[in-house]
Formats: sequence, C-alpha cells, structure tokens
Amino acid sequence: MSYTLNELVNLRDFYKKQLLEDTLPFWFPRSIDKEHGGYLLMRDADGSLIDDDKAVWIQGRAAWLLATMYNTVSPEKEWLDGSASGIRFLREHCFDTDGRMFFHVARDGKPIRKRRYFFSETFAVIASAAYAKATGDGEAAAMARKLFGKCMEYAARPDLLPAKFTGTRPAKGIGVPMILMNTAQELRNTVGDERCDDYIMHCIHEIEKYFVKDDIRCVMETVAPDGGIIDHIDGRTLNPGHAIEGAWFILQEALHRGNDPHLTNLGCRMLDYMWERGWDAEHGGILYFRDVYGKPVQEYWQDMKFWWPHNETIIATLMAYLMTGNEKYARWHRMVHDYAYSRFHDQQNGEWFGYLHRNGAVAQTAKGNLFKGPFHLPRQELRCWQMLDQYLENRK
Amino acid sequence: MSYTLNELVNLRDFYKKQLLEDTLPFWFPRSIDKEHGGYLLMRDADGSLIDDDKAVWIQGRAAWLLATMYNTVSPEKEWLDGSASGIRFLREHCFDTDGRMFFHVARDGKPIRKRRYFFSETFAVIASAAYAKATGDGEAAAMARKLFGKCMEYAARPDLLPAKFTGTRPAKGIGVPMILMNTAQELRNTVGDERCDDYIMHCIHEIEKYFVKDDIRCVMETVAPDGGIIDHIDGRTLNPGHAIEGAWFILQEALHRGNDPHLTNLGCRMLDYMWERGWDAEHGGILYFRDVYGKPVQEYWQDMKFWWPHNETIIATLMAYLMTGNEKYARWHRMVHDYAYSRFHDQQNGEWFGYLHRNGAVAQTAKGNLFKGPFHLPRQELRCWQMLDQYLENRK
Repeated sequence: MSYTLNELVNLRDFYKKQLLEDTLPFWFPRSIDKEHGGYLLMRDADGSLIDDDKAVWIQGRAAWLLATMYNTVSPEKEWLDGSASGIRFLREHCFDTDGRMFFHVARDGKPIRKRRYFFSETFAVIASAAYAKATGDGEAAAMARKLFGKCMEYAARPDLLPAKFTGTRPAKGIGVPMILMNTAQELRNTVGDERCDDYIMHCIHEIEKYFVKDDIRCVMETVAPDGGIIDHIDGRTLNPGHAIEGAWFILQEALHRGNDPHLTNLGCRMLDYMWERGWDAEHGGILYFRDVYGKPVQEYWQDMKFWWPHNETIIATLMAYLMTGNEKYARWHRMVHDYAYSRFHDQQNGEWFGYLHRNGAVAQTAKGNLFKGPFHLPRQELRCWQMLDQYLENRK
Repeated sequence: MSYTLNELVNLRDFYKKQLLEDTLPFWFPRSIDKEHGGYLLMRDADGSLIDDDKAVWIQGRAAWLLATMYNTVSPEKEWLDGSASGIRFLREHCFDTDGRMFFHVARDGKPIRKRRYFFSETFAVIASAAYAKATGDGEAAAMARKLFGKCMEYAARPDLLPAKFTGTRPAKGIGVPMILMNTAQELRNTVGDERCDDYIMHCIHEIEKYFVKDDIRCVMETVAPDGGIIDHIDGRTLNPGHAIEGAWFILQEALHRGNDPHLTNLGCRMLDYMWERGWDAEHGGILYFRDVYGKPVQEYWQDMKFWWPHNETIIATLMAYLMTGNEKYARWHRMVHDYAYSRFHDQQNGEWFGYLHRNGAVAQTAKGNLFKGPFHLPRQELRCWQMLDQYLENRK
C-alpha cells in the first residue's frame, strides 16, 4: 500500500527526531576525545566505554557525519569542532610512512594494525571533503583529492596492495566500485573534483556489466574478472544488504542526473533481486549472507541480522518508492522499517544494537566496536529525513 | 553421580560404534580424491560435495586420522592407502618455494591462499609421523621431524612470519604452546623424537605461567608477554572450548608421566575454570567466546555452539573423571555428551553438524568446509573409546 502524504510527513518527522534526539546524543559530545583528539566510540549499550582503541575508518566516518550535519542541517559550532577533532587525529596519527593508512590504532594514535584494504582511506576522503566544505580549509580539500586519487589507483592496480590470495583464481568484489562510487559522490557534493562524474559512471558500469545477473535475478558479491560466477563457497556467497546499499548509491546517481531512467531501472532491479534473496520471510529482517545456489555458506553466522543492512534497505526502499511511486517499495519500506525500529532500537539508552540472532533476539549488546560506530544509522536517518523533505517540498 | 562400570562399558561401546559405523563412513572412502590425491571434504549434510577445494590443515588431519586408525585400531589396507593419498598430496602440492605451507589449495593443488600461521605445518607433522609409523617410511619420518623443527623455530621467533599486528601492543596466544604440545605428543607416540619430552614441558610451563589465572579462575586466550591481561576487546576474549582442549592435552601428559599429580591438578583446574565460564546454564552446551570481565565480545556470533568445543569437552571431562574419580566430572561428562549427541549428531546422514544457534537449532548444514573436516569428532570418539578400554582393562 502506498504512503499518503500525511504518512510521509510523519516519517520525515520521525527520522529527524530519531537522529537529533536519540542517535546523535548517544555518541556526542561524550565520544570526543579531548585528550588525544578523535573519538572514543567502542561503547556498550548504556554508553560505557568497553575499549579506548580507535578504528581508523570509523574515525573518518564520525568526522564525516559531524561535518555533514554542519553542512546540511545547521551550522552548529559543536558539530564543526567535533569534526575538526577527528580530522586532526586522522592527519596526525593514522598514516603509515608509506602513505597508506592504518586500520586500528591505540587511543594515543600508536598503530595496532594495518590491513590490505583501503577503506580507511575512502572514509578519510569523505571526512576531509565534508570538513573542507564546512571550513574552506584548503589543506583538507587537498587531502581529500589526493587520497581519492590514491584510492582510484589502488582500485585500478590491486598489485599495489599486499595480496590475500594467490593469482590462481582471480576474483573481484563489488565492494570496490561501490565504495568508490559513494566516495566520489560525497566528494562531488562537497568540494567537488572534476574526476568524479566520469568515475562514478565507470563504477556503475563495472557493477552493471560484471555483478548484476538478470538471468538469475541476482547481484553477485564476487566474480571472476570476466564476470563469471566462481563456483566455490566464497564465490557463491551473496551479501544482500551490501548489494542493496549499492542499489541506492545508483538510485542517488539517477536522481543527480535528473531521474535518469536507465540508472533508476538498474538500481530498482538490484533492490528487487536482493530483497527476494535477502528478506527473511519467516522471521523478518535481512539475512546477512546467502549462497547463490542455496548451498551452505561458510560463515556459520550467515543468518544473523546486522544493523547496517537494515539501514541500507530502509534508504533504498524509500528512495525507490519516492522515485517510482511503485507501491511495492512502500510495502517493503514499511516491513523493513517496522522490523528494524522494533528490534534493533534500544528504547532505554538510544541508538541501535548491532547484532541480532535470526529470531530477532539481541546477540551482543555493544553499540560500538571496531566495525560499528556512528555511521549507517545516523546516515540513514539523515538521508531519509532529507529525501522526504525534498519530496514534500517538490509536491507543494 | 559417578559412572558404574557397566555404564562405562556402554559408553566405550557407544563411542566405538559411532566412530566405525557413523562418523568414519560419512567421510571415507568417498572423500579420497582418486584423480589428484588428497581428500574432497567440503560436503553438505547429505555428503554431497559443495566445493572441491582443499584446506591444507584438514588434509593433514584426515591423513593423520587414517594412519592413526591403522596404527591403533586395526591394520586395514584401505585406511593406510587412504592416508598415503593425503601424504602424497601434502608433499607434492602444499609447500611454497620458501618451505612454508599453503592454507588453501585448489583440487589439483594449485595454491589459493597462504596464511601467517603454521597450523598447516603442525598437522603435516602429525600426519607424516603417524604414516611413517604405519609404513616405516623413512622419508615421512624425516619430513615429520624437519617440519616439527620448523614449527618450534616459528614459535620461538614469530618475526619469521608476516605480522598481523604492529609491535605497539605485543601479545601471545595460548594456541601456539597448545598446538605444539599436542604435535610433540603425537610425534613421540609414533616415530619418536628426542626433543619431544622437554619441549612438551616447556609448552606446559608457558601455559601455566602466563595463561592460567588462579586468582580469577580463568585461562586466558591471549596475554601480554609478561602474562598480564590486555584490557582491550581482543585481549579480554576467552575461548572456553579451546582452553578445555588444552586441559586434556595436559591431563594426557600427566597420564604419560605416571599420573603426575602436579599436571593432573593443572589440567583439572583449567577444565574447572573454563567449564564455569563456558557452560551455558540456560540452553546447555559450551558457548564459543566469553569476555573475561563479562563485557560484550567483538565477535557477534560469540554465543553460538560449535561442534569442536563439545568434542574437546567430552574428552576432557571423561579423562578427568577416569583419572580423579571426582563425580563432578562424570556429571559434566553426561551433560556435555547428552547435549552434543542429541543436538549436533545428524541421525539421518551420520556425522555432526558444525554450527548451532545458542538455542540449539542448526545454523548451517555443512559437514565439511575450510575449517571443519574429519578431525575433532573422530578423534574424540577414538580417544574416548581407547581411554575407556584402557581403564576397563586396568580394572580387570
């Protein structure tokens, strides 16, 4: 059933209220590390700190969020100062001597671990770009552009990074074009960069050509270099929530290009395929991993419900509905919104739990760790609020 | 309640029957790869192959199992031939040019992945040693001894292997002394090696001095080099089933040394501490991870029930009971045995499922993958059968 205008107004108000009165206050100001800079984000359900280490990619995400709130919601000094704290910490402590970034550092910035991936870098790009827009800081803008160039280079030449696998069975993941597409979109939205438009289309072309399989109604997570399905456990493993995140990145690009019909159709197909494969008809919610042929997935926790696929699906279904008017997307949006806010949201302390068992019971109470912080949930609430605002504005 | 002699006879017969008529026939002979050598072990519940790749450590474990059956149960030609197939595959396909072993290879032996650990090597040691005992093959004995020397060297000089973490927060894991103790025990039991006795005591001393914390009744999984508790998420994470496996390795050494009272006491303390922390009073079974201070564990699947901690706990509780006569251990053995054989065992197709949700529901149906194969379960059934046989023999 479609949403009435009144329901859309209520939804807009709900997301705004959740973001400003529930999610954001869980994290800030208490997480800003006044002693060393950056953020102390590894917190239990009640907000108590369980570890004072810092995950570099989440430091970048938090700095991005605060600068984006400043840029797009209201120029609050505390948001800008909070973002600055993260930007300084990233600049001063999170780069190795080879120019690559660490993944995990101690509270004082001493490095604990560097990984083979460049996710720390992509989030440093969007944080620096948003901060540069907020402040006009040329050094931050230059850092964003320089790091974006490095990320494009790593994506084009994986041999620059240490390899996890030998060359026996070459493969590529959808994660790289997805994250770079979104990084380029954020860069374009803030300080701008002439490489972005073409690069975004390059990423979308990669995804469409190699990962989207219309014949079996599926978006692959990993494929052979020619797009072939690698019929081994890892190659068959699908990540529906991730593909659905990719779907709304593409819908967002369609919007940016004046409701481009080809991109709208592509994003909706990706959402359709992975909703069909990921939605748990028995218990509700988005299942974490599926096998393309229904075989057992290596990861034993494959049927758990994680917070972030629900954030991404809430955005994707709402965006698809507002762009197409197809009532199916309103129905799906209701389903995933109701499931998520009734199961993940911690009514007592605010924010969401991260990990539920398949049946919806909380598996682990932490609100923040090396992999979870103030990103997917506040981004969803912000995006949905702004998207509805824009839609309602256009209908006036 | 203690076990009666009659109950012990029944248990002995049960483990023997399960091993010979249920577990072993699930895997063999169908898993022997007649084309390329080694074993095809990644199988779904019904035995159908889900992937023809080969995990090197599990190739070693399977070759060890078959040679050990030949050495200690009955000299069946098919077991020896089966073991030979794995030994050949390990020799011909699983070594890199630097002398280290791969972790994951394709069916034909082409390398897919090498890891930073030397578990492939430790299982190649015990496989080669058991095979050498079965055949008198001097080359296999020499390979076992040479690789054992390399493993000792890697353990003493972790800088020989690629590091996962920087040197900022040095740590050591209980896994290294545990696996090397057991590797040395298996080497000693088969072709022998004069380094084993001292090295086993060195490993036990490491565990006792650094990992066993009597003041808080706990066996740590990871500690600082001086044995201090690292108060970060990873450092606080306990693996009760793993520590209980270590407990029975030490009880086994106590037995070997004429019921050494100090070692018996150490093994029992480790079992006591980790039963208290690992047994799930609500649903039964051994929980996978716990935090030493009861905080949230990083791994969201921390409360799942895996097959192997149950195999290790069945061995440890039975061994502790037979060695001490303490009825508490008989009670615990009944609890874990009943839980495991009623939940993990697949009555329809044989063998055990690997992964249950906390409430006991099967989470994933595979019997074999990169991490599960014919090892913990058949080893448990074999060890328990033989331990009971020996005990009943001595009581005659």
